[in-house]
Amino acid sequence: MSVRARPPFGGLDASMEVISGKWKVLIRWALRDDPQRFGALKRQVPGVSEKVLARQLRELEQDRVVRREAYDDRTGLRVEYSLTPRGIDLYQALKPLGDWGRRHLAPDAAPDRG
Amino acid sequence: MSVRARPPFGGLDASMEVISGKWKVLIRWALRDDPQRFGALKRQVPGVSEKVLARQLRELEQDRVVRREAYDDRTGLRVEYSLTPRGIDLYQALKPLGDWGRRHLAPDAAPDRG
Repeated sequence: MSVRARPPFGGLDASMEVISGKWKVLIRWALRDDPQRFGALKRQVPGVSEKVLARQLRELEQDRVVRREAYDDRTGLRVEYSLTPRGIDLYQALKPLGDWGRRHLAPDAAPDRG
Repeated sequence: MSVRARPPFGGLDASMEVISGKWKVLIRWALRDDPQRFGALKRQVPGVSEKVLARQLRELEQDRVVRREAYDDRTGLRVEYSLTPRGIDLYQALKPLGDWGRRHLAPDAAPDRG
């Protein structure tokens, strides 16, 4: 059943399909402040292979969360990746979830009330 | 690399591990207001099998997002599932993400600027 056909679970299940995948979270995190080149992105996402990183970036582009820009500078073709306005909006929407993770899952998180 | 050993990506990657999986989103959504019995949960999560639903509930319990309560009522043993305080906190933290989904992914979403 495609996402569109599924009953609207508050827009959440459609969002989950866009954000899911452990690498995408880390890629968006690496792009949160500035555009990055492929190599710099790879260094900031521990454990990802070039092949997987390239595929994840393509998917993020298809979901219009990331933009790929290629341009000529004095040294030749330069390619940079950055968050689109939709990607920046997603990054903001995920902050409360990151806060939840720090509250409940971090090694020093306070014990829950149950 | 276990979640705990990974650099703290703002708590987000740890959270993603807890929330990921298309069924868990829908299960939490079904539990958002009231405790539910297994059968009622299954009816509210289209397409899930009993086996998968039982496993997802066990994982949500292990993550202390869902609580399972069994008690005797006049008709025999009754089992209900509900969100824990941590689960309710997670549900709240996911609302902005659901809003993002409605803004950007719903069939009638306004076209993006970027």
